[in-house]
Amino acid sequence: MKKYFSELLGTFILVFFGTGTAIMSGLNPDTSVGALGIAWAFGLSVIAAAYSIGHISGGHLNPAISFAMFLDRRLSGQDFALYSVFQTIGALLATALLYLIFSSLSSPNELVLGANSVGELSVMTAFLVEFILTFVFVFVVLSVTKTKFIAPNLAVVIIGFTLTMVHLVGIPLTGTSVNPARSIAPAVFMGGAALSELWVFIVAPMVGAAIAVLANNLLDSSEVHPEVNE
Amino acid sequence: MKKYFSELLGTFILVFFGTGTAIMSGLNPDTSVGALGIAWAFGLSVIAAAYSIGHISGGHLNPAISFAMFLDRRLSGQDFALYSVFQTIGALLATALLYLIFSSLSSPNELVLGANSVGELSVMTAFLVEFILTFVFVFVVLSVTKTKFIAPNLAVVIIGFTLTMVHLVGIPLTGTSVNPARSIAPAVFMGGAALSELWVFIVAPMVGAAIAVLANNLLDSSEVHPEVNE
Amino acid sequence: MKKYFSELLGTFILVFFGTGTAIMSGLNPDTSVGALGIAWAFGLSVIAAAYSIGHISGGHLNPAISFAMFLDRRLSGQDFALYSVFQTIGALLATALLYLIFSSLSSPNELVLGANSVGELSVMTAFLVEFILTFVFVFVVLSVTKTKFIAPNLAVVIIGFTLTMVHLVGIPLTGTSVNPARSIAPAVFMGGAALSELWVFIVAPMVGAAIAVLANNLLDSSEVHPEVNE
Amino acid sequence: MKKYFSELLGTFILVFFGTGTAIMSGLNPDTSVGALGIAWAFGLSVIAAAYSIGHISGGHLNPAISFAMFLDRRLSGQDFALYSVFQTIGALLATALLYLIFSSLSSPNELVLGANSVGELSVMTAFLVEFILTFVFVFVVLSVTKTKFIAPNLAVVIIGFTLTMVHLVGIPLTGTSVNPARSIAPAVFMGGAALSELWVFIVAPMVGAAIAVLANNLLDSSEVHPEVNE
Repeated sequence: MKKYFSELLGTFILVFFGTGTAIMSGLNPDTSVGALGIAWAFGLSVIAAAYSIGHISGGHLNPAISFAMFLDRRLSGQDFALYSVFQTIGALLATALLYLIFSSLSSPNELVLGANSVGELSVMTAFLVEFILTFVFVFVVLSVTKTKFIAPNLAVVIIGFTLTMVHLVGIPLTGTSVNPARSIAPAVFMGGAALSELWVFIVAPMVGAAIAVLANNLLDSSEVHPEVNE
Repeated sequence: MKKYFSELLGTFILVFFGTGTAIMSGLNPDTSVGALGIAWAFGLSVIAAAYSIGHISGGHLNPAISFAMFLDRRLSGQDFALYSVFQTIGALLATALLYLIFSSLSSPNELVLGANSVGELSVMTAFLVEFILTFVFVFVVLSVTKTKFIAPNLAVVIIGFTLTMVHLVGIPLTGTSVNPARSIAPAVFMGGAALSELWVFIVAPMVGAAIAVLANNLLDSSEVHPEVNE
Repeated sequence: MKKYFSELLGTFILVFFGTGTAIMSGLNPDTSVGALGIAWAFGLSVIAAAYSIGHISGGHLNPAISFAMFLDRRLSGQDFALYSVFQTIGALLATALLYLIFSSLSSPNELVLGANSVGELSVMTAFLVEFILTFVFVFVVLSVTKTKFIAPNLAVVIIGFTLTMVHLVGIPLTGTSVNPARSIAPAVFMGGAALSELWVFIVAPMVGAAIAVLANNLLDSSEVHPEVNE
Repeated sequence: MKKYFSELLGTFILVFFGTGTAIMSGLNPDTSVGALGIAWAFGLSVIAAAYSIGHISGGHLNPAISFAMFLDRRLSGQDFALYSVFQTIGALLATALLYLIFSSLSSPNELVLGANSVGELSVMTAFLVEFILTFVFVFVVLSVTKTKFIAPNLAVVIIGFTLTMVHLVGIPLTGTSVNPARSIAPAVFMGGAALSELWVFIVAPMVGAAIAVLANNLLDSSEVHPEVNE
């Protein structure tokens, strides 16, 4: 059970600090940390969360990562399912707390809660964006947890930096999902367009993750380091 | 005695550069580094301070961290008390110097000195925010100084990055304490609301730290690395 | 063949996220991450790309780097040629995808696509700027992949930070090339001035790389670490 | 001779990219990276420079650091003198090139060239600021190159991050010197107030460095790691 609660707590950290920074920036442009600050918040929250619980559960914090680890035979099918459930519960708890905190600062119907959105893009283009972002993110995750080129203990820093990089392009486009759990939580609280567009931010990351596993296996025949996987 | 003076110097560095950057940003919006710059100032000051004195005293720089280390049986009760006193003296010295430097640039009664504040939140919500921020911060500190998953020498970088992350959400809400010594110093100099609200920024971090020890022990049965604790 | 496709994918990541962030910032000043955000995007994209494919191909992602490695006898002439071709194909693919995504947000003839430009400088000064930036960048790359002073696994972080540093000065001057593949791709799509000035962003980086090899060999007699070169 | 040219090249990199970013930001507020970007430019330039030449000369890049290493008996008196001369030549070369590049973008008499200045502070307060900043910076440098607590190969990252932290407080106050070579170069080119105030930015860093050696020896009895000193 410890590994499931680790994924819950880790995903709570990612969503509370990542989307929390995004919500705060939207509320008050004068004190906003901007898209650069939000991008760092997501990257640093992965570093904080995955270093503190990674040795227990692997620190996936994201159903798309768990899906990739399952396809790459580093995670069982049952664990993929349970990881995804506990990650989503962690994201929901974080969003509920953010709602509690921020609802006193804003009228509830104006509160965006960090939901992802197709925005000004067509659905096809938003899907393409999320596919590319997740493909690259998961490809990096698969590689740096596998290769002897870098020390395992540096891997999570690289993964966090990569998530920041992904957000620098993605925030003004879709808000950047690359993580179904991170998208489900605010959509459930907000309903409306956030809920009707939610499928894009579940399906595109999952497809991106699957293609990343394929590309990684074609390109890289390294063995998996036992010490970086549970 | 060396370890007590190390904590004094380390907390001096944290408060001088962290709240110093915050004060400077408040004085002149045109040259402000913004909330992102302040968040980096706090994170980098922990990295600078804890790497330079960490091998002498552990580099806690924060009574909430020392409290957690005491509860986790990595620090004696006497050392917890003395660490807290010397940390607070270091914070007071830093604030006194900042007052000396900045009072020539601003009328004294306008100088904010980086005090934490309940701000637009209710006291209950501010307490909740500080509780969550400290819980996550101390949980990460306890884990990364304990696990074999990361090299001990990388632990302080992760802790600094985590403090930056915590500030990205917390600056617009309470200014971010998560550290009683950091809050006591400006409140003593400013009095008024800063002093009457001070209990929030002492009690909430201590409660957050205690719950973090509990959660960490429930989730993580790893042994403590001898080389990262004094 | 794997190493050529690795260079293609790595350069794709560099150009998609680096110039993608630059294009996005140009489209909407309100959500822009600014020159600091663009500088981080380039630095972090090198970190993401070179850590994930560096153990296969070395992670050059740049014909100027491959040229320096060839002159330093760490890469064959044939591989230098093929690396450059595959790097340029990766950059073209990234630019094509960026064109597809961003053309729906802007009228095509206003889309800048992140091309480098002489701008307000004379051609001679722009050449000098690119020469100095590439000289320093390649000198750092040659040194940190060679010296025992730093662990090989930290080298790519240093290289990424150096590319961010190079962009902080270079973005307002020429947009910062230091990489012919990164400059060729948008110039081919945009034509006009971007194409007629393109030679500056091919020749200056190549000359800078050659002089960096000379300076590095004069100053540094260390042997090359076998584990960081393919 | 190689170590002297290494210090020249390293200080060239520090001044060209650090003050170059500061000059650029002053020229055009619209494309400015702000004080946060300048602070990162200085920190990252130390990382780039000291990792690439640190194994040859130690990577001091700063007469105040060399003075501290001399007082700490890690550098001979002759080398302290020659290091300081070559560091200053490197800084002058960088400033000359920056003058060449930027004079075409601005009328020469408006060009600030990144000189340090007492600004709105009294001379006494500016001296105090530079003393504290250099004391902390040199204390961190002495510690992290000495302790077994962190791996030597991470030390320069910590030193770079510390220089960024120092700039976050110091840029709006004095522009941040903490390095006589960095201050001498623009003062020589600009004359006037920059030259008449120059003594502050030479004497205060040297005094701060001397007190840092004293404090470090009182607090820390660790032996020096042979591998991080030449």
